[in-house]
Amino acid sequence: MIETINISSNRRSQLIDITSKVEKIVRETGVEDGFIILYVPHTTAGILINEGADPDVQRDILETLEKLIPRDAGYRHVEGNSDAHIKSTLIGCSTMVLIEKSRLLLGTWQHIFFYEGDGPRNRKVYVKIISTKQIG
Amino acid sequence: MIETINISSNRRSQLIDITSKVEKIVRETGVEDGFIILYVPHTTAGILINEGADPDVQRDILETLEKLIPRDAGYRHVEGNSDAHIKSTLIGCSTMVLIEKSRLLLGTWQHIFFYEGDGPRNRKVYVKIISTKQIG
Amino acid sequence: MIETINISSNRRSQLIDITSKVEKIVRETGVEDGFIILYVPHTTAGILINEGADPDVQRDILETLEKLIPRDAGYRHVEGNSDAHIKSTLIGCSTMVLIEKSRLLLGTWQHIFFYEGDGPRNRKVYVKIISTKQIG
Repeated sequence: MIETINISSNRRSQLIDITSKVEKIVRETGVEDGFIILYVPHTTAGILINEGADPDVQRDILETLEKLIPRDAGYRHVEGNSDAHIKSTLIGCSTMVLIEKSRLLLGTWQHIFFYEGDGPRNRKVYVKIISTKQIG
Repeated sequence: MIETINISSNRRSQLIDITSKVEKIVRETGVEDGFIILYVPHTTAGILINEGADPDVQRDILETLEKLIPRDAGYRHVEGNSDAHIKSTLIGCSTMVLIEKSRLLLGTWQHIFFYEGDGPRNRKVYVKIISTKQIG
Repeated sequence: MIETINISSNRRSQLIDITSKVEKIVRETGVEDGFIILYVPHTTAGILINEGADPDVQRDILETLEKLIPRDAGYRHVEGNSDAHIKSTLIGCSTMVLIEKSRLLLGTWQHIFFYEGDGPRNRKVYVKIISTKQIG
């Protein structure tokens, strides 16, 4: 079974915390031990795990990406979003988290963020939970 | 079972679309639901998923990486390919894609690319398909 | 079962080779075919796979990251470690390696490194081994 998380971004560049949505899906499937794969089927977006406590960290991440890979830098691709393709490439479109005793094994400060690089748009994240109880 | 995709790059820096080769392997194994792990056993190469429609996106990705991490920048490593090690580190040497109803669940614009950072060379990508049919 | 590798970093920014520790865990579990997930539950650290033969490659990686994302660059986050959060985001907090015939299928030059971005600190890496023998 693959679940889908739907996301509406409202800025061009944005980090959207989806931790509680992912945790809800893990709870509902009742899987006790295993891992979860998160997959973003877009080419100007991505997924990352980092600090969720201080929103300034999220701003620093976005602003530094913008400094390193500016929106306009003489790119060849004519759609005006090459920077988002490149940022998406570096951030990556998938990640995974372990599940232990029915809980996501995130670190104390870790939150899961959808990265929007060319919004606002409607986006989705695929969620697949793999139980390893049976294959121990 | 681990399958191997063999690749011959013909430039120093290059993105090579391997989507159809990966799809062929998925078809042949007959796995209906699960996921695929793609793994590059090299340290100056990598694997990424991004837009495959407009080749200009691929050029923008390679040129921006070159701008950020130039081939010559006073590196210590004497083999002249430190830039490729660093690019490889940022791109990553593995990725995964979900499989649903015997098909790779790629987004509309997503293609799978082998990243060559220090070619031309003969390279390989390991492909492992994990079926989750049996493990709920 | 999830194993934990404990790490003590002794510099602010550092790559620590954990390959032999990971190999030991794989040997002890006796899993013949499958894959391993390595997961770092920290937000100023990460995990990467790259060349382990020449330590100069590791220095080049760290110095280039420092050049691209300097420690001080007018960040908003007041803890003085925003650069480490950003580097951690680009490097990533998880990776995987295939297992074949009870051995990690690393490339000839590939080693597994824990990336410390804000040390010295005590850190950990979660290790989960998934056997695919039973799920063919």
